[in-house]
Amino acid sequence: MDDIRIKMLTDEDYHADILIEGLPGVGQVGKLVAEHMIEEFGAEKIAEITSIFFPPQVLIDDNGVARLSCNEVYLVNTDGNSIAFLVGDVQSASGEGHYLLTDAYLDIAEELGVKRIYTLGGYGTGHLQEETQVFGAVSNISLREPAEDAGVVFSKDEPGGGIIGASGLLLSLGAERGIEGVCLMGETSGYIVDPKSAHAVLGVLNALTGLDIDDTKLEERAVEMEGIVEKIRELENAKAEEELSYIG
Amino acid sequence: MDDIRIKMLTDEDYHADILIEGLPGVGQVGKLVAEHMIEEFGAEKIAEITSIFFPPQVLIDDNGVARLSCNEVYLVNTDGNSIAFLVGDVQSASGEGHYLLTDAYLDIAEELGVKRIYTLGGYGTGHLQEETQVFGAVSNISLREPAEDAGVVFSKDEPGGGIIGASGLLLSLGAERGIEGVCLMGETSGYIVDPKSAHAVLGVLNALTGLDIDDTKLEERAVEMEGIVEKIRELENAKAEEELSYIG
Amino acid sequence: MDDIRIKMLTDEDYHADILIEGLPGVGQVGKLVAEHMIEEFGAEKIAEITSIFFPPQVLIDDNGVARLSCNEVYLVNTDGNSIAFLVGDVQSASGEGHYLLTDAYLDIAEELGVKRIYTLGGYGTGHLQEETQVFGAVSNISLREPAEDAGVVFSKDEPGGGIIGASGLLLSLGAERGIEGVCLMGETSGYIVDPKSAHAVLGVLNALTGLDIDDTKLEERAVEMEGIVEKIRELENAKAEEELSYIG
Amino acid sequence: MDDIRIKMLTDEDYHADILIEGLPGVGQVGKLVAEHMIEEFGAEKIAEITSIFFPPQVLIDDNGVARLSCNEVYLVNTDGNSIAFLVGDVQSASGEGHYLLTDAYLDIAEELGVKRIYTLGGYGTGHLQEETQVFGAVSNISLREPAEDAGVVFSKDEPGGGIIGASGLLLSLGAERGIEGVCLMGETSGYIVDPKSAHAVLGVLNALTGLDIDDTKLEERAVEMEGIVEKIRELENAKAEEELSYIG
Repeated sequence: MDDIRIKMLTDEDYHADILIEGLPGVGQVGKLVAEHMIEEFGAEKIAEITSIFFPPQVLIDDNGVARLSCNEVYLVNTDGNSIAFLVGDVQSASGEGHYLLTDAYLDIAEELGVKRIYTLGGYGTGHLQEETQVFGAVSNISLREPAEDAGVVFSKDEPGGGIIGASGLLLSLGAERGIEGVCLMGETSGYIVDPKSAHAVLGVLNALTGLDIDDTKLEERAVEMEGIVEKIRELENAKAEEELSYIG
Repeated sequence: MDDIRIKMLTDEDYHADILIEGLPGVGQVGKLVAEHMIEEFGAEKIAEITSIFFPPQVLIDDNGVARLSCNEVYLVNTDGNSIAFLVGDVQSASGEGHYLLTDAYLDIAEELGVKRIYTLGGYGTGHLQEETQVFGAVSNISLREPAEDAGVVFSKDEPGGGIIGASGLLLSLGAERGIEGVCLMGETSGYIVDPKSAHAVLGVLNALTGLDIDDTKLEERAVEMEGIVEKIRELENAKAEEELSYIG
Repeated sequence: MDDIRIKMLTDEDYHADILIEGLPGVGQVGKLVAEHMIEEFGAEKIAEITSIFFPPQVLIDDNGVARLSCNEVYLVNTDGNSIAFLVGDVQSASGEGHYLLTDAYLDIAEELGVKRIYTLGGYGTGHLQEETQVFGAVSNISLREPAEDAGVVFSKDEPGGGIIGASGLLLSLGAERGIEGVCLMGETSGYIVDPKSAHAVLGVLNALTGLDIDDTKLEERAVEMEGIVEKIRELENAKAEEELSYIG
Repeated sequence: MDDIRIKMLTDEDYHADILIEGLPGVGQVGKLVAEHMIEEFGAEKIAEITSIFFPPQVLIDDNGVARLSCNEVYLVNTDGNSIAFLVGDVQSASGEGHYLLTDAYLDIAEELGVKRIYTLGGYGTGHLQEETQVFGAVSNISLREPAEDAGVVFSKDEPGGGIIGASGLLLSLGAERGIEGVCLMGETSGYIVDPKSAHAVLGVLNALTGLDIDDTKLEERAVEMEGIVEKIRELENAKAEEELSYIG
């Protein structure tokens, strides 16, 4: 059994200029954006990746059918753009695996002829916030200005601890292969699945790529989640007042 | 020293249609059922599996004799059924090991000509319950209806986190080799070794396979454990009342 | 760099009938006994073992000189007995390493022509005790009676969790190579380095092997430590009384 | 993808008599000293080391550009001394990796013709102290006297637990290759980045090597940090008094 197994679902000779990564992470922000795009574009699944570095776990679908924890590559050709997506269930369960899996993802990207990667994720702030900034990092300084023009915030302090996992490694290991990379991180509390943050990231991605992806569904989910967040805020305020009255 | 070592105990050319897995897990449910069946059938041990992925520990038997942590394959031919059992002391101590060991188990299954695997386990609910449902998962949608007819419950919400370890991986890695798989998970608190849950799983397995395995011994152990559980409940109730009176 | 490195210190063609293992463990019991024997016999160091599975740490001797965490093999010929000792600084830091290192230790044992291994350790009871039993485990049932005659206690309940690390694995992996093994575990609280427990183990080992190793030094250390233990007991009693007066 | 990747930045044939290691560690003491020296000397970067044993993380520079966690080798020729420096972002995230990376560092050192290694680090005391001793360890007893003459303290009790990571392994694995090694550990609380401790280590290193490195910048940072430490002390005293008044 190979440590990493890539299963191509067809023999067709695919090509993609762009790879968009949205694997699981803080607030599931990247995953929400990438899956939304796959749905909007009706992108086609072309590859499945399984690995002994993934958690040793099968997932059960709504029909009760088990399947291995699995990451997937989708592809779409739209308005002259050929875009691949890297999405899925999991990230590596081990440090070494993160490097080796990213290397495998880049093998696929290189095979597809990818010239640029967008990695999408959340940036956990630890608190609920009104506004959602989208922080960025780039594999090359020349990519910064266009990103800023699209609304990406570059901050000396954020993200302080660097970027952990595939979103970060794809940028730097990709650069070694001559593939440009931009990482977009939507602010998110880190406590909830965050479609509002995903909506903000999609907005920036639309501006940055010239794609014009409909964001209605993400917006609806964001509004819905905002209702839940509002309730959490009320509970927190009530609790804070209670504590104050206790102290007072 | 090989990472995984399979020791065949005879040179005979064995065959089995079915593999039943009952390795250690929540409530030891699968282990109880499989070991009960081995005893009822008088199945013969045909293979031993040891591995550097198992905990680095020897077990001491009642005579003071040490032996390596070890999993075992048993075999029985009964009423036209040839059944293999995978039971033993341990599961993998590492994530990667879970994949590699399951792969080795499937090598044995394939060698035996196994067409279907039943993996048995417990589903931890975190609380003691009166009734014991048996939840299921299948490697293929076509296996669901017969399972439901046998009393297996398929729920969109359970098991929420998927299935961890050999019970899950055998289904999905087995399917890749053309071996069908059904996982049966008896509800169990997760706090105790649970023969009652095992008894429920055995009932479903009897219905599903057409086997007619006597369940008297498991039932007796279930009644015995039920007495213990009843005492735990009484203690919990007493404690809860005490706390209420404290608050009130 | 090899995962495990064995450095033979001379080219001489050594032989040993017996291997006595006393690597670090609960109460350092095995280590105390084996190091005491090496000192009494004036055994000669013949091999050093280092490994990437050991903790990534150097130790500093009293002169300020650093050396790798290292295990060692000593050898002595005495009264017609040829005895090798396996002692040292560490056990494996990983589960897999425990298996692979034990395999390497057995390579050395086999090379030396070892026919029997005694593995020495402590059995942690979690409380201070007056008497020190020496529990045992054997690789083969035929070894039990002579061990019992020498004062070893075989109990169905102790050690409940099996034997972790080299002391256990040497028995079972040794048996696979035709080397007999007896494990001696002195009761110990697990809180202190325990020369009293070591003294008890040495007594049993003397009886079992017919060796007549002077135990004066271990006894002295045991008496010394007993003084410390007595003080701990007094402190515990004082504390317990205090708590009782608080409740009362 | 190789487990450890060494990228030489030029084809030039470099040479260094001395290697000074200052990788991250307690109080960042070694890192502060080595980076200070690189800056003072204007040393040139000649190699980059990346590894799957490093944390799976990219770091973002002030321009928002991502780069792999990376260690680096610098080189300078000054007043007849040729000195290499090993500095960088990280140490190994796994025990095995510590050994394998140190082995790779020594490959570079050997390639450069290094005869002596100074490894620099902090020795965590767990409390703030007025004076900063510099403890030492050597790969060979002959190195002790010159070190003591330079002000290094050799203590039977410090460091009690040995030296963890590259600073220690470089000494002992280096000695195997015939490279001498001295480890200098500045006392530090372990709570803060500690330029005062780094200043003390630099002083000792100057005396030991005959280098005459300007320490003004480190001294300034030490004074600055001392102000912060003073405030921490005041806060602790205030807190201690508060607790005393609470008990009293």
